[in-house]
Formats: sequence, C-alpha cells, structure tokens
Amino acid sequence: MKTLSDAFEHTLQDIYYAENALTKALPKVHKAANGKELKAAIADHLEETKNQVKTLDKVFKSLGKKPSGVKCDAIEGLIKETEGIIEEASGVAKNVALIAACQAVEHYEIARYGTLREWAKVLGHSEAHDLLTSILDQEKAANSKLTNLAVSSINKK
Amino acid sequence: MKTLSDAFEHTLQDIYYAENALTKALPKVHKAANGKELKAAIADHLEETKNQVKTLDKVFKSLGKKPSGVKCDAIEGLIKETEGIIEEASGVAKNVALIAACQAVEHYEIARYGTLREWAKVLGHSEAHDLLTSILDQEKAANSKLTNLAVSSINKK
Repeated sequence: MKTLSDAFEHTLQDIYYAENALTKALPKVHKAANGKELKAAIADHLEETKNQVKTLDKVFKSLGKKPSGVKCDAIEGLIKETEGIIEEASGVAKNVALIAACQAVEHYEIARYGTLREWAKVLGHSEAHDLLTSILDQEKAANSKLTNLAVSSINKK
Repeated sequence: MKTLSDAFEHTLQDIYYAENALTKALPKVHKAANGKELKAAIADHLEETKNQVKTLDKVFKSLGKKPSGVKCDAIEGLIKETEGIIEEASGVAKNVALIAACQAVEHYEIARYGTLREWAKVLGHSEAHDLLTSILDQEKAANSKLTNLAVSSINKK
C-alpha cells in the first residue's frame, strides 16, 4: 500500500470481507435475540447486509476490479465480542448487550464507508462514491433504528 | 450477565480495557505517522485518552466499584488492523490509512459511550451518566478533528 488508490482498494476489500462475515454472523444474533421487534430488526438488517454485498460487487465492477476480500481483524474482533454475549448473557442483559454489539458493528461500518466514499470522491470514482454513499446512509439508518429500539423499549424494561 | 446493571458493568470494564490498550497503541501510531499536523493530533489524543482512563476511574468510584477491565476483543481487532497498516503501508497510503484506522477506533468508542451513558441514565447513575457523556463528547470531537484532517489536507495530496 503506497498510494491513496492502494489504500482505497485495500479498505474496500476489508469491508467486503466484513459484510460477508456479517451475513454469516447475523443469523446467530437473530437466533439469540428475544422479542419480535428486535428479531425483526435483525432479520431486516441481514437482508440489507446481503444487498450491501451486491452493491459492493457493483463498486468493484465500476473500478474494473473483481470483488475480493482481505481478512478484516476489526470485524473478527467485533463478531467475537458478539459471540461472547450470546454465550455469557441471559435475560434482559442479552438483548440490550446484543443491540449494543450490533451498534458497535454499525459504527465500524459508518467509519469505513465514510472514509471510502471520501476517498472515492478524491480519486474521481463518482459511481463508486454514489454507491458507497447509499450504503453509508443505510448503515446510519440501521444504527438509528437500533438506538430507538434500545432507548424506547428495551432499556425501559 | 443477567440484568441491565450487569451489562452496564461489563461494558464499562470492556471500555476500560480498551482505553488502557489505546494508551499503549497510540505511541506506535504517533511514531509511524508522517507530518507535524497528524503527529500533533495523535499526541493530543493520547493525552486525552490518558485523561479518559482517569475519568473512567471516577465512574467506577461513583458506582462504589474498583476500576477493572475485561478483555475487549473488538479493540484488540481494531488495534491489530492498525498495526497491519503500520507494517504494510508506506507513503501517502500510510497516513490516510492510519487516520481511517483511528476513526474506526473513535467510532467504536462513540458506540460504546453512547450505549453506556444511556444505560447509566436508565439505571439512575447520574454522576456516571455525566462523566460518560463528557467522554462521548470528546470522542466525537476527536473524530471530527480526524475527518477535517483527512478531508482538508491529506486526501488532497
């Protein structure tokens, strides 16, 4: 990695790995979560994540590259933390800690897409910029949904 | 972990571990970064992080607990990712990727403190709520500073 273009491609591969890893991790979170509302939110987000992988495929295509991932240590750590909650928590703690863990993942993605779309702009990749911005907006909306879920219903129990 | 109170204490220990780990990781980032402005921003944030550990000590004290940490897999992953950049990147890529990695850490912290201060409020820990809010505001400001640094100077090179 020497140039901004190298950093962009590497970080794109990193988030591609992360989104794919999440499509495998979210079903476990869905299974562990309690309550119709939270389960529905996680199921929705799983579908959204699968679509984001397809959008990333388009980003790679717009750059004339084949989609590929590189191991992302950050998402591995975030998923490991979530798995720890599934194993160790029960009752109210399980749901609130799972929401919090999902929000930590959302924030990681918000950081990554914020960086990537900015770099895409500087590099003149306008199609990639627009696609990445659309995912960023979805991640922000997903995070807000989780905040509302946490604040308005679960924390109050 | 069964109750909201358990989840709160566990997450507080998690971020205490994370902040302490960052006080050890940030000097390596400082050494690897190029340019007066970025080095100064990282040095400032290291000092801020050390103060945040002291603020967390006060949070534990306000709850009548001794400060303690539990291994935080997420921060371990985020730091590992940053160390990978230090090893593998050079030139422009190194600086931009280091800023991006620091922003991913900031976002993790923003997620955690956002959750913690909300839980503190629900649990009636008003002193802890105020202390955690003060750290949250600092993390948000640190992230904005990094965004400005990335957008206005480094990306444009």
